Amino acid sequence: MSKFIFQVDKSNFSEWYSKIISTAEIADVRYGIAGFIVIRPWGMYIVKELYRLFEAELEKRGHQPSLFPTVIPEENLEVEKEHVTGFKPEVFWVTEAGEEKLERRLALRPTSETAMYPMYKLWIQGRRDLPLKLYQSCSVFRYEKTPRPFIKGREFLWIEAHDAFATLEEAERQVLEDMETTRSVLYEKLGVPIMAFQRPEWDKFPGAVHTYAHDVLMPDGRVCQVASTHLLGQNFSKAFNILFLDEDGQRKHVYQTCYGIGISRMVAALISIHGDSGGLILPFPVAPIQVVIVPIPGEETARVLEKCRQLEQQLREAGFRVYLDEAPERTPGYKYYYWEMKGVPVRIEVGKQEVESKVLTLARRDTREKIKVEEEKLVEAIRELAEDMLRSLKARGEASLKSRIRDASSFSELKQYLEEGGYVRAGFCSTGWEGEACAAKIQEETRGRVRGFRIDIEEEPEGSCIVCGKPAKHVVYIARQY
Amino acid sequence: MSKFIFQVDKSNFSEWYSKIISTAEIADVRYGIAGFIVIRPWGMYIVKELYRLFEAELEKRGHQPSLFPTVIPEENLEVEKEHVTGFKPEVFWVTEAGEEKLERRLALRPTSETAMYPMYKLWIQGRRDLPLKLYQSCSVFRYEKTPRPFIKGREFLWIEAHDAFATLEEAERQVLEDMETTRSVLYEKLGVPIMAFQRPEWDKFPGAVHTYAHDVLMPDGRVCQVASTHLLGQNFSKAFNILFLDEDGQRKHVYQTCYGIGISRMVAALISIHGDSGGLILPFPVAPIQVVIVPIPGEETARVLEKCRQLEQQLREAGFRVYLDEAPERTPGYKYYYWEMKGVPVRIEVGKQEVESKVLTLARRDTREKIKVEEEKLVEAIRELAEDMLRSLKARGEASLKSRIRDASSFSELKQYLEEGGYVRAGFCSTGWEGEACAAKIQEETRGRVRGFRIDIEEEPEGSCIVCGKPAKHVVYIARQY
Repeated sequence: MSKFIFQVDKSNFSEWYSKIISTAEIADVRYGIAGFIVIRPWGMYIVKELYRLFEAELEKRGHQPSLFPTVIPEENLEVEKEHVTGFKPEVFWVTEAGEEKLERRLALRPTSETAMYPMYKLWIQGRRDLPLKLYQSCSVFRYEKTPRPFIKGREFLWIEAHDAFATLEEAERQVLEDMETTRSVLYEKLGVPIMAFQRPEWDKFPGAVHTYAHDVLMPDGRVCQVASTHLLGQNFSKAFNILFLDEDGQRKHVYQTCYGIGISRMVAALISIHGDSGGLILPFPVAPIQVVIVPIPGEETARVLEKCRQLEQQLREAGFRVYLDEAPERTPGYKYYYWEMKGVPVRIEVGKQEVESKVLTLARRDTREKIKVEEEKLVEAIRELAEDMLRSLKARGEASLKSRIRDASSFSELKQYLEEGGYVRAGFCSTGWEGEACAAKIQEETRGRVRGFRIDIEEEPEGSCIVCGKPAKHVVYIARQY
Repeated sequence: MSKFIFQVDKSNFSEWYSKIISTAEIADVRYGIAGFIVIRPWGMYIVKELYRLFEAELEKRGHQPSLFPTVIPEENLEVEKEHVTGFKPEVFWVTEAGEEKLERRLALRPTSETAMYPMYKLWIQGRRDLPLKLYQSCSVFRYEKTPRPFIKGREFLWIEAHDAFATLEEAERQVLEDMETTRSVLYEKLGVPIMAFQRPEWDKFPGAVHTYAHDVLMPDGRVCQVASTHLLGQNFSKAFNILFLDEDGQRKHVYQTCYGIGISRMVAALISIHGDSGGLILPFPVAPIQVVIVPIPGEETARVLEKCRQLEQQLREAGFRVYLDEAPERTPGYKYYYWEMKGVPVRIEVGKQEVESKVLTLARRDTREKIKVEEEKLVEAIRELAEDMLRSLKARGEASLKSRIRDASSFSELKQYLEEGGYVRAGFCSTGWEGEACAAKIQEETRGRVRGFRIDIEEEPEGSCIVCGKPAKHVVYIARQY
């Protein structure tokens, strides 16, 4: 048995990513249909915790759970023109059942606007029915050309929240709330550095007035959109006839927003951002096992094991997900490497010395530091460690992100920086339709995509558009994407 | 506004059932594709709690979560002969994507044996990989001829657990464990009376050696299978080549079980068994709101509301799902009826008198009794109420079930009893294949189905088969089913 369970240089990100997914048993890509993967227990626990965190956050902010069918009648999909143009090329179609050919094709939902809004029309009558804020946790299906596990699946997991309001102002506030929901979990609780953009006109959600999104800059220098929220205005309510009787006696179209939380992509982001050459590094809230206890055999094995069981019990009662790795056929060294590869944030080593001194040895996964902790202060020490690890993951992530944002002042600089990976910041003529030609030129010649301008800070453009030389209206961020 | 938000005689069960689903906003059947329903928040909270309860129970018993794709390649489905014969007539097929026709058809999973077992073949190598106990929570799709909300959906929610073992004995123990899992949640925690049967040969899961199932007797006298577990033996491991290297150096086929927990059907059972003419009665563990506080306006409204908020806070901290219904435009009377219809187990009424006397008025949903409780004993009193309601729901359910089991000693009695609804207990020649003709005769002439024999108690058959007159080998239960 080799010393290292996993040892892959992360600078070869593509190799690292597929190896850690397989070695840590997060998923299996050998299902036999391209773009469809099997999520294994270690991955599924992470998925479940992500769902739990986001669902709690959504409910705290007034959303309620619901579940709409997986299939959508073709005629629903046709109702909103931009929407159908955007999604139809990616739709999987159910056309037969048993021995019968169905009278009409049913789409596997690529997103659920067209499943939900005909029902919103029925449910919304008066002002009292508003706001209506529903979410559903489900998988969606898109016929992607180049699938990649968790990053681009033909079936992937997400949460979609669909809200309806009496006024535009409420809808505008909602998209900001959604952005805050993404940030409060993905960055605040899980330490994944993200950036918030308003997307250019040509990169909006099909049918939206505005699209806002969070991107994660992956280790290979490409970006991955992990969540997006869309101000739909009255585009869909007019197409689907969703009206309410206002207090002034008038029937009016509601204002809508929709919000997609990419659970699968967040798994990819979490793994990729935090992991190192030894494997996963999982932040406490999503770690399937938060603390692993490894007994050191030798003299006094019985007493050591008794102590281990006692600690296990104590930590479980304190609310931690804890595992005691008793397996006698494996050495402590093997167990250290194994659980490091799995990303377990804290390990406790217990041998004769620890039992006698009542001072335990803790190892934290992120820095691999070992810390001595008095037994009676264990629970407190682990709580502090959890917080400190989160702080340190955040700091590391932020620093790495910052170092990969560079300002370009010429097209050739832009091209070179994109080749090297990361964001390039530049002046740009317009994120309205009139800027599309410049964006197309960037994409064609550099494979870079204009991600939009930041909404969390205001950046005053100076000088001229990096492509056409007209006066710059926005500071945009450009990056290659998955 | 009418006094009654809901008042439907439950003896007309079919009307009661569809009205309560709509009035309590559990689901909406107007989605536009027969057999596909929309689950609304009040229903979805119940669904989520059911999932939470069963997932916790499965994990406690060594199962781990996983998630397999929604689509299954047609050739996988063909591997096990009985299985494909049983399920293929019910399969929905995906045949197109975007503008392309797929090279092979993909089934929407009707159940996931054929999605999972090719992976089990890859994962299981040695004895150390066993037992493998995985579950997934998902929806499945079956082209049912006569769909009915939650009872028979073309898309329905369930959990499926698939286990593999080195020995037959372990697999046999597993099906008993599964039966206990069903009972420990559905009966012990939620008070739904169930009966456990071993199904006759002709009513087994396609590909199984034995099938065991729990049925619920619905108010209209028909039964509904809510969960079933199957001893698969080596039928599937031989078809899918799932082998392990045993300690004796031999490669052997694993023994398998699979277990389906019908979440959608349990929603139907819960609603139907416990509800009354005033609406839902929800047991505490699945009630979206467990305690509703209704302020009585009048003098001292400010003090009353302050007290209500304080109680709300206190109960929330004690871990209850609590709601304070402040809406000023609705009368307390309306609120009482409304929350009774919704099935909220406990209501607290707070007026000036309650504030001054520090004695609160509690109303329990099941018996509609009102109880006086000293304010300082509130939390304790609600905990006791929760237990007492469960005891009382169980007792009521058990009594009702018992009263609807009757012994038939002739075919004409059998026919008459089935017409009146409920179970008929009778001697039967054989639940092996040789009894199929007798079962077919029963079905043809009475629409009754032989549910099998009980496995929780031993019932010694006396006399002869109710159909053919040969010596009875089993006491079977016969009922009409959904």
